[in-house]
Amino acid sequence: MKLGRLNHIGVATPSIADSIAHYRDVMGATDITEPFDLPEQGVKVCFVNTPTDSGMNGTQIELIEPYDESSPINNFLEKNPAGGQHHVCFEVPDIARAREEFEEMGKRILGPTRIGAHGTPIFFVHPKDMQGMLTEIMETPKGTEH
Amino acid sequence: MKLGRLNHIGVATPSIADSIAHYRDVMGATDITEPFDLPEQGVKVCFVNTPTDSGMNGTQIELIEPYDESSPINNFLEKNPAGGQHHVCFEVPDIARAREEFEEMGKRILGPTRIGAHGTPIFFVHPKDMQGMLTEIMETPKGTEH
Repeated sequence: MKLGRLNHIGVATPSIADSIAHYRDVMGATDITEPFDLPEQGVKVCFVNTPTDSGMNGTQIELIEPYDESSPINNFLEKNPAGGQHHVCFEVPDIARAREEFEEMGKRILGPTRIGAHGTPIFFVHPKDMQGMLTEIMETPKGTEH
Repeated sequence: MKLGRLNHIGVATPSIADSIAHYRDVMGATDITEPFDLPEQGVKVCFVNTPTDSGMNGTQIELIEPYDESSPINNFLEKNPAGGQHHVCFEVPDIARAREEFEEMGKRILGPTRIGAHGTPIFFVHPKDMQGMLTEIMETPKGTEH
């Protein structure tokens, strides 16, 4: 695999509204997207855009709140009631090829490839095979390839 | 405060050598700095540079291994033997001003302002006041302001 952009870090929170207030009022974020539901993934999400030399296209902070009682992040929040760092997400040009490569390396992939919060295909790799970090691999959105 | 660049995410590891191999061989990183010791902070560190549209100046992954038995990350590794996400680090233009602002907001700052891994002043803010995330604030290195 060729390392792609660190698209976002996923941050679990018991309250996306409180987290938005934190990033706006404490951290001074000026560009936070509207929250939206991803019921298939069991989460509500929004993105805090961070600045770079060339604009607001830095690594995003993805705020994730449980969508319902069956949300996969409820376990994380039970252990970390205040929330915290949940996963990291790297971009790849071709999701099918990346999945093959991870499989060839014997890495445990969690579930099928599906559509993620950016509207492109994603999959997750088991933290025990990834240095303790739950790792999302996402296909770079069309029109932003580099 | 005005949100600055997400400079790096700090990732604790029991073996910086193993983590370098992981980022190089599994993730395909091509730009990893030589590890160096920061004995005052009790850590050995190196940086994995990630790509952006404009080059290799994306949010870095800071790999952190304990320097000795008194290292502040030993506790984290006891709880997370495989390693994992340890902290996030945002840049600010003026570290003294940022410290004042966090103090005015009643955020608990951990210890004095000191020189961090990039050679500029840094301080840490308590995760309980920062949505569960240990947060490092660092002054933007001179010559890279934006």
